[in-house]
Amino acid sequence: MLRLYDYLDSGNGYKVRLLLAQLGRPCAWQELDILTGETRTPGFLAKNANGRIPTLELEDGRCIAESNAILWYLAEGTPFIPQDRYLRAQTLQWMFFEQYSHEPYVATPRFILKHLAADSPRRAELPDRLARGRAAIAVMESQLSHHSFLVGDGYTIADIALYAYTHVAHEATLDLSPYPAVLAWLGRVAAQPRHIPITQRPA
Amino acid sequence: MLRLYDYLDSGNGYKVRLLLAQLGRPCAWQELDILTGETRTPGFLAKNANGRIPTLELEDGRCIAESNAILWYLAEGTPFIPQDRYLRAQTLQWMFFEQYSHEPYVATPRFILKHLAADSPRRAELPDRLARGRAAIAVMESQLSHHSFLVGDGYTIADIALYAYTHVAHEATLDLSPYPAVLAWLGRVAAQPRHIPITQRPA
Repeated sequence: MLRLYDYLDSGNGYKVRLLLAQLGRPCAWQELDILTGETRTPGFLAKNANGRIPTLELEDGRCIAESNAILWYLAEGTPFIPQDRYLRAQTLQWMFFEQYSHEPYVATPRFILKHLAADSPRRAELPDRLARGRAAIAVMESQLSHHSFLVGDGYTIADIALYAYTHVAHEATLDLSPYPAVLAWLGRVAAQPRHIPITQRPA
Repeated sequence: MLRLYDYLDSGNGYKVRLLLAQLGRPCAWQELDILTGETRTPGFLAKNANGRIPTLELEDGRCIAESNAILWYLAEGTPFIPQDRYLRAQTLQWMFFEQYSHEPYVATPRFILKHLAADSPRRAELPDRLARGRAAIAVMESQLSHHSFLVGDGYTIADIALYAYTHVAHEATLDLSPYPAVLAWLGRVAAQPRHIPITQRPA
């Protein structure tokens, strides 16, 4: 059986949990405490030299790191990745946008606020990060003002990748009310069959 | 004909130029000055709402943004992407690693040092960014100590993606001499057929 190394509050981990649930695919689940170094042990670094969750271990012991690469691996050949070559590239475009222009500015502020001490010096990073977070959400708004989903007209792993931290942007103090198309899209994503919340601990 | 919106000194743009050269695929080339706002005009934002180069315009006018998504689009069905499903996921794993854990800490310091004023306040970011850059290169070293290329045993777009800024890491003041496997790999990549340098302006 597949095994996912993960941390429940991680949006990056949630992406994989959500897709697995929607694929109906069973997976052993092992939580590592990213705050106490459990992803930096020699044993875990042998699975992912970059020392991060989520990391997916296949039945034969080989591992895949990087949440969006794991999504691609699991979704190939399913309706969660379009068949058209241009739309596949668009799916990846939004996923690379997510990791480069969105995650550091939405997920990282949320992490600083939720998981670090109130007097952490990293709070100084918040104004710049949140400004860039708003810019990323504005890019999504421009796309979702004219499209139901990020790629083509269907729900794909690009939506999963960007839903993961956008739907908890309020935990980063980001107000989504100026982005009505994003808010409507969050509702469409949450209404997909077999949707699960980020707080749902796998069995 | 394809048209690439680009900036010559950009490693992200160079990735696409290098793959196009190695595919033998002609492409119109248009340089935009990222320092004077040429990627933030209404005309360009209609091509890429995130306002960044490289952006590839197809023959029919549709566009693809994000360097690594463009690589995937161009390389699908060629030997630059493995056919095996696990190796395809590994290719994407290294490309997401590049954008999340490497580019902000190798490319951005290089940009600050090469393109911003000597008294730019952004120089304060350098110590932390460079420490993370060394950590990213150490992750590459651990892989390349046992493998000739990043994925499987052949040259792929994962190598192109990570070569782009690693081979100019010295311009970010990053010394690669502690990473002999990375240095040897840089030589193997540069020895591939139809390799071009980052300084080569397309015709």
